Amino acid sequence: MPDPIAERLRLLEDREAIRDLIARYGPLADTGNAEAVAALWSEDGVYAVGGMGEARGRPAIAALISGPVHQSLLADGCAHVLTSPAIDLAGDSAVARCHSVVFRHEDGEWAPVRVAANRWELRRGADGWQVVRRDNALLDGSAAARALLS
Amino acid sequence: MPDPIAERLRLLEDREAIRDLIARYGPLADTGNAEAVAALWSEDGVYAVGGMGEARGRPAIAALISGPVHQSLLADGCAHVLTSPAIDLAGDSAVARCHSVVFRHEDGEWAPVRVAANRWELRRGADGWQVVRRDNALLDGSAAARALLS
Amino acid sequence: MPDPIAERLRLLEDREAIRDLIARYGPLADTGNAEAVAALWSEDGVYAVGGMGEARGRPAIAALISGPVHQSLLADGCAHVLTSPAIDLAGDSAVARCHSVVFRHEDGEWAPVRVAANRWELRRGADGWQVVRRDNALLDGSAAARALLS
Repeated sequence: MPDPIAERLRLLEDREAIRDLIARYGPLADTGNAEAVAALWSEDGVYAVGGMGEARGRPAIAALISGPVHQSLLADGCAHVLTSPAIDLAGDSAVARCHSVVFRHEDGEWAPVRVAANRWELRRGADGWQVVRRDNALLDGSAAARALLS
Repeated sequence: MPDPIAERLRLLEDREAIRDLIARYGPLADTGNAEAVAALWSEDGVYAVGGMGEARGRPAIAALISGPVHQSLLADGCAHVLTSPAIDLAGDSAVARCHSVVFRHEDGEWAPVRVAANRWELRRGADGWQVVRRDNALLDGSAAARALLS
Repeated sequence: MPDPIAERLRLLEDREAIRDLIARYGPLADTGNAEAVAALWSEDGVYAVGGMGEARGRPAIAALISGPVHQSLLADGCAHVLTSPAIDLAGDSAVARCHSVVFRHEDGEWAPVRVAANRWELRRGADGWQVVRRDNALLDGSAAARALLS
């Protein structure tokens, strides 16, 4: 029979670990640390970025960070701002939903150049919680972006 | 005598539940799910929106989401971005304070059209934590908006 | 021998306390409560604000809030929006990293006038967790700002 206290504790630890994992994306993306960003995902994880295609596997995800679009953002100055996610936990897997806003710097000013919906699928493996799939879609009135948040 | 471990655990669970409740508002508002938004509140809950009057009870809160102002936002593309709240817990009730920013999409760009202070009164009932009252006021220099955060 | 359940619980409590401490900065800054803002720091704490020098000790930190730059922001209307931090805990000390965005109101509109990287050093003392040092740097393409997030 499982200890109810230990069980309740584990639920909180799981939620904390997932929140922390997602909180690391923005700071790592803004330092340009491609390998560390990719390591948030599982080996075969997927990152589908609205308007920019789908990266499959850590090397492809790292390539998004080391690629010209992201490097140009870093050179100008940018912030990948994510909100604290709403988390639905189900044993060793979870779905989290949040917003992301990318601010881009230009001439001493910043503009929110991407405002997007994010749906994260996460799984607990031998190395703890990892991202299995992240879908990101611009909140530009499209039904597909709204659907990620429901 | 209460078990001190169980007591500490419950405090953390309460804070987690409140944070999660507030984290659900933005994604639900941006999907336009009026009933799910309203269900974050208690039956007789109040949502006082700066510059837009006061909605009392779930049907009135749902009407804010299904009404023309919010539907126009959704059609253009929007994000209801909330910060992770500072929570003051007192037994079965709590007060949480956070910011909210509404980004509105237009012609491939986004603008922060509402930047507001939010004060949430929450209560734990038979169905868990619910919002009893949310006050929202535009941070436009007014003392009333600042007062919500103190 | 330490109780493993109590140990796990304390780790969660520490992370919750740190997150809560950081979540209080924005609302307190936007109410202009200089003493309450300064009390988030230890007596000899440091707040190094990008482009505005370094405040050492609570009186100097309070002076940032009661000073003309911040008071002008408050008069116009502002929001100090912080993201939920990524926290690295090590016993009685911790490092947390997050973004901050200052929105300034003017003529019914808001603009993100400061978008910055933040690195917090925190310590647990007799009065609980406090900020020992906060470094803040504008994300304007400078390597120094990016370094705070890594």
